[in-house]
Amino acid sequence: MKNLPQYPIPNLPENSLPRIVIIGGGFAGLKLTRSLKGKPFQVILLDKNNFHQFQPLFYQVATAGLEPSAISFPLRKIFHNTKNVSFRMAEVSSFDSEKKRVYTDAGYLDYDYLVLSLGADSNYFGSKSIEKYSSPMKSVSEALYIRNKIISNYERAINLSKMEDRKVLMNVVIVGGGPTGVELAGAMAELRNSVLPRDYPELSFENMKVVLIEAGPSLLAAMSEEAKAKAEKYLTKLGVELKMNTKVKDYDGRNVYFDDQEPIETATLLWAAGVKPNQIEGLSESSYAPNGRILVDEFNEVIDHPGVYAVGDNCLLADETYPKGHPQVAQVALQQASNLAKNFERARRGKNPEPFHYKDLGSMATIGKHLAVVDLPFIKFQGIIAWMTWLFVHLMAILGVKNKLFIFFDWAWSYLSFDPSLRLLIKPRYVRESERKELIEQK
Amino acid sequence: MKNLPQYPIPNLPENSLPRIVIIGGGFAGLKLTRSLKGKPFQVILLDKNNFHQFQPLFYQVATAGLEPSAISFPLRKIFHNTKNVSFRMAEVSSFDSEKKRVYTDAGYLDYDYLVLSLGADSNYFGSKSIEKYSSPMKSVSEALYIRNKIISNYERAINLSKMEDRKVLMNVVIVGGGPTGVELAGAMAELRNSVLPRDYPELSFENMKVVLIEAGPSLLAAMSEEAKAKAEKYLTKLGVELKMNTKVKDYDGRNVYFDDQEPIETATLLWAAGVKPNQIEGLSESSYAPNGRILVDEFNEVIDHPGVYAVGDNCLLADETYPKGHPQVAQVALQQASNLAKNFERARRGKNPEPFHYKDLGSMATIGKHLAVVDLPFIKFQGIIAWMTWLFVHLMAILGVKNKLFIFFDWAWSYLSFDPSLRLLIKPRYVRESERKELIEQK
Repeated sequence: MKNLPQYPIPNLPENSLPRIVIIGGGFAGLKLTRSLKGKPFQVILLDKNNFHQFQPLFYQVATAGLEPSAISFPLRKIFHNTKNVSFRMAEVSSFDSEKKRVYTDAGYLDYDYLVLSLGADSNYFGSKSIEKYSSPMKSVSEALYIRNKIISNYERAINLSKMEDRKVLMNVVIVGGGPTGVELAGAMAELRNSVLPRDYPELSFENMKVVLIEAGPSLLAAMSEEAKAKAEKYLTKLGVELKMNTKVKDYDGRNVYFDDQEPIETATLLWAAGVKPNQIEGLSESSYAPNGRILVDEFNEVIDHPGVYAVGDNCLLADETYPKGHPQVAQVALQQASNLAKNFERARRGKNPEPFHYKDLGSMATIGKHLAVVDLPFIKFQGIIAWMTWLFVHLMAILGVKNKLFIFFDWAWSYLSFDPSLRLLIKPRYVRESERKELIEQK
Repeated sequence: MKNLPQYPIPNLPENSLPRIVIIGGGFAGLKLTRSLKGKPFQVILLDKNNFHQFQPLFYQVATAGLEPSAISFPLRKIFHNTKNVSFRMAEVSSFDSEKKRVYTDAGYLDYDYLVLSLGADSNYFGSKSIEKYSSPMKSVSEALYIRNKIISNYERAINLSKMEDRKVLMNVVIVGGGPTGVELAGAMAELRNSVLPRDYPELSFENMKVVLIEAGPSLLAAMSEEAKAKAEKYLTKLGVELKMNTKVKDYDGRNVYFDDQEPIETATLLWAAGVKPNQIEGLSESSYAPNGRILVDEFNEVIDHPGVYAVGDNCLLADETYPKGHPQVAQVALQQASNLAKNFERARRGKNPEPFHYKDLGSMATIGKHLAVVDLPFIKFQGIIAWMTWLFVHLMAILGVKNKLFIFFDWAWSYLSFDPSLRLLIKPRYVRESERKELIEQK
């Protein structure tokens, strides 16, 4: 895209403040932008979507518990009446650190400081067929796609006469025993145990398997022993089949293959096994760790690229406590963003920047309808109180009063009625030929 | 599809009750199915979607006022614990009235009675280019598509430097002055007057036109003179440009052309100008009126096809009061369905069927945020009380307590905050190549 003649992005307010361009409106990018509200910088936030996505609840969209809109927040709305912040929906292809210029599909943009908060995408560890046939869950769209896929499979299963063929469509296999995999497995088991048998009285749900596969020796590797043990117990009680120390070898859309076990038949393989950082053209080779994360110093400045910063899942900040880099979780992203915002402010005042120190606030995962495991720095607990803690923390983290209320109401309704009502297979109207032809040439 | 070897739809409960197959779960089909709950018939409802759609509120989905899920109701859920009703998500291609057999993409199905409640789709009156470039609104998906299109256009407009190019993307032209067109125009004008300028402070909204075009001499042709006059007044006050007695000649995706007027530039032409009945293969030529509606007698039985019935928008029942057929509105569909359900019951008891008599309960349309026009048989009124009546009637008509509450809450929130938050451009994840390849061959 760099070679195309491109005009600068128009309609940006003109001013002489130093310009910070932030690429990506995930936890890190959004937090940073919000922290710079009203500060003497011109802040331009770029994202390919016009909304922020609340990743911790994707699994509820996938299992028909929440609407996409409940966990998606229009970025423009967040920055209403904020004069020093502009948002542009644009795909960024590359940047040039000599010219201090970012190239997007909407035009180019010059910066004084550039922040890469690109996030991470699913990692298939090189398997093309798993990438092709499995379903990832790294965006609201992908979560909605999973929901639609599962409903379609049941509508198809009901029209088959052979038991064998039905099983393939009914079984759900989840790969990855982190919080995402655990929460997905719990919610899927709940669907099987309560909602689906009522929707499909013609099918026998004792034949539906929910399998959770983890390559390591335990679920929730980053959590305490108590949390791990209780998570396994809760999932087993819900009827989830757990396979630890098990690596998926291949998947062809119908069978999941292993090295030393019988294949499992399923048309639905949900992939939550790992992430790889999103990349951008413009960084030197020396700025990347072997795993593709961008190497930053303790101020989140990219190695060999002064004025370019990286925060969140796409960066690798190694220190004494975390010699291999910090965990790729929301808490790290949020804290890095806060620290970076402070350092921009300090630099403006001629002060030295402060290094980043991660304060681990703990972690949690919910399992099914009323259980969770919670590790806090000072206390670890599990069960129904943990679940209430999980509810509270997530409700508070959700942006906007209205979304908080809607989600709370939705949860309360599902909990009391045991019957979420979002089992809608709303198919997208595909883009028509006439749409593809660009009607207005962007110059 | 009739020529393909096809197996019957499996997994249907076996019983000796007379089987009624109902094609289409719109107002007519759903009402009929509900009226036959628990009656001594085996009822099989077929629809290509797994949900019923509440058409009167499509315009609120299109204008980001309501979520698709708020006005979509999973059909399976409606018939939980109803033993004599089965639902199948299937596309029906044809039927054979000799064999009494319906052909679908999921298999064939034999019937004793067949009911065609196929509804109607947009009518472009033969213009291929209007069909290609305009946006219809006859399903939740199409309404959502309109929402996404409008948001995309604004995100694109902001990246253009020429005023002329921006106008094309900002203008909205609506064709058809019936309730749908009037309600769409009012909601679009509200968006322009309140939400959009805050989302896009860089654009000048005095340049955005909302135009409503009607071929006849007035809006809301079926309503009273008072309603017509007030609707025009309210829309004009909101800043909608009204063009009566105006026929659209052509549209190329950028310009709307007329016979005797200057073209209007717009990338968004919303088509609410008319409907044509959906069709099915299997009826004789003599069963169709010239406009494609299925000719039925006063018992809704299709001419020349004993045992086959048609109710709702796709049928034409002419009587003394309505010599050209009844209006294609929800009230007629619902009343025909009730009457047909009663007649099935009477036939079983050896009684003669009762002819259909339409009881016009009146009609209404809402304009913008707090005005409406209402014609009831005994009274006609307009303004804010009419709007409250409209709200109440629509809330009561919505299925399900939860949807009622959610919509009420959503409306209250939008009304009080003047800031709906559904401006999300959630793009579908397109069906991948691997999905197209059918993994399980349906036999």
